Amino acid sequence: MHAHVISSVNEACAANFHHKTAIVIDVLRATSTITAALAAGASCVIPAETVMDAKGLQQEGDILGGERFCKKIAGFHLGNSPLEYQPSLVEGRRIILTTTNGTRAIHKSLRADHVLAASLLNAEACAKLAIELRRDLVIVCAGTNDDFAMEDGLCAGLLIDCLRSLAGIPVEVNDFGEAMHSMYRFKAECIEQSLISCASGKRLSKLGLQEDIVACSLVNSCSHVPRLVDHKLI
Amino acid sequence: MHAHVISSVNEACAANFHHKTAIVIDVLRATSTITAALAAGASCVIPAETVMDAKGLQQEGDILGGERFCKKIAGFHLGNSPLEYQPSLVEGRRIILTTTNGTRAIHKSLRADHVLAASLLNAEACAKLAIELRRDLVIVCAGTNDDFAMEDGLCAGLLIDCLRSLAGIPVEVNDFGEAMHSMYRFKAECIEQSLISCASGKRLSKLGLQEDIVACSLVNSCSHVPRLVDHKLI
Repeated sequence: MHAHVISSVNEACAANFHHKTAIVIDVLRATSTITAALAAGASCVIPAETVMDAKGLQQEGDILGGERFCKKIAGFHLGNSPLEYQPSLVEGRRIILTTTNGTRAIHKSLRADHVLAASLLNAEACAKLAIELRRDLVIVCAGTNDDFAMEDGLCAGLLIDCLRSLAGIPVEVNDFGEAMHSMYRFKAECIEQSLISCASGKRLSKLGLQEDIVACSLVNSCSHVPRLVDHKLI
Repeated sequence: MHAHVISSVNEACAANFHHKTAIVIDVLRATSTITAALAAGASCVIPAETVMDAKGLQQEGDILGGERFCKKIAGFHLGNSPLEYQPSLVEGRRIILTTTNGTRAIHKSLRADHVLAASLLNAEACAKLAIELRRDLVIVCAGTNDDFAMEDGLCAGLLIDCLRSLAGIPVEVNDFGEAMHSMYRFKAECIEQSLISCASGKRLSKLGLQEDIVACSLVNSCSHVPRLVDHKLI
């Protein structure tokens, strides 16, 4: 099994995805929020690239969620915090979500045979499903505004760690993936602190969103794996 | 002090270098070879982007060195192995060197106030000089054909480790630099093995160049720091 890890959404090109399972990572916060929303009982999450697209997709009863510059979009029901997506609000409802980096990374991955959304919350469950799907993997760290983001690299490293524990066959990865695996191994005992001190964590802390960082750092706390089917994550 | 680590030469743009000290890394093998050549007594190393440029720069008594596809260039005196650059051959002579990734990274860095060449061999000495030069740093991992190369990331991590030990002030680095530092810390006890098992190491091993890998993995074994002055590394 081969896993190719890509450092930011900008580095991904269509050829990377041919006959592969794509795993998209945006730990702070899109893929954590998608995981939390589905775990809270949302019927699906529909990723939209733009605010206009999101509004165009909205049907009666749908929830509009997302952010620009880390803040809730004017007129939307919810922002991009996993803590907002509570069962009382989202159970049985469709979520239309647009974020700066994460939903863009999902759209870039559409040529893959399968597309999964991973976060620290569901990495082990995601690795299990990826193994069952029997394809080589392309793991896309969404990053922040085309730059590598530490938290996404940590999650890629955790995924490789889980894949190597669970696959029962050798998992070959590219140099960048090996680097992320080593980083994860070095930081495995201080994940929350690593998320607080990275660039995205500092940005969220300044906006008073420390609780989101803690919520996104709960490694393997969730067994839900969002999977793209007909342009919906279910 | 701020250090911005760039993952491959393709990611570097002119704005990154303004008022900075650039440190260029191509562990396998250009910057290791440049370091070895100067340590062996070469009067200077002149980086050339193309084979044609190299031949154009050649004067009587100069040595032409370099590689394409990891192999010595037809008609050149030497290849790109640090082991070839022995005092008996190079002492007092100018070396004109052209390689696939390393010399290109040096040319990309010309807008910096200072340009240094780092390898595992001279990382500590390079960190010392960079601190003396009192500029923020941009550390360019040359990579391989526009992709990240593990060995260059390891050297970037070692440089940050040395900078943090020696600077006497906090050294802030971008997320990618922090990731490389964590990777280095995780792999610090198995540098040679890491170089053998990375993509570039496998490529060189297939060509029978294992001795080069060993020669390039001798951490802090050399106090020479190649520095660009008037387009020559001295």
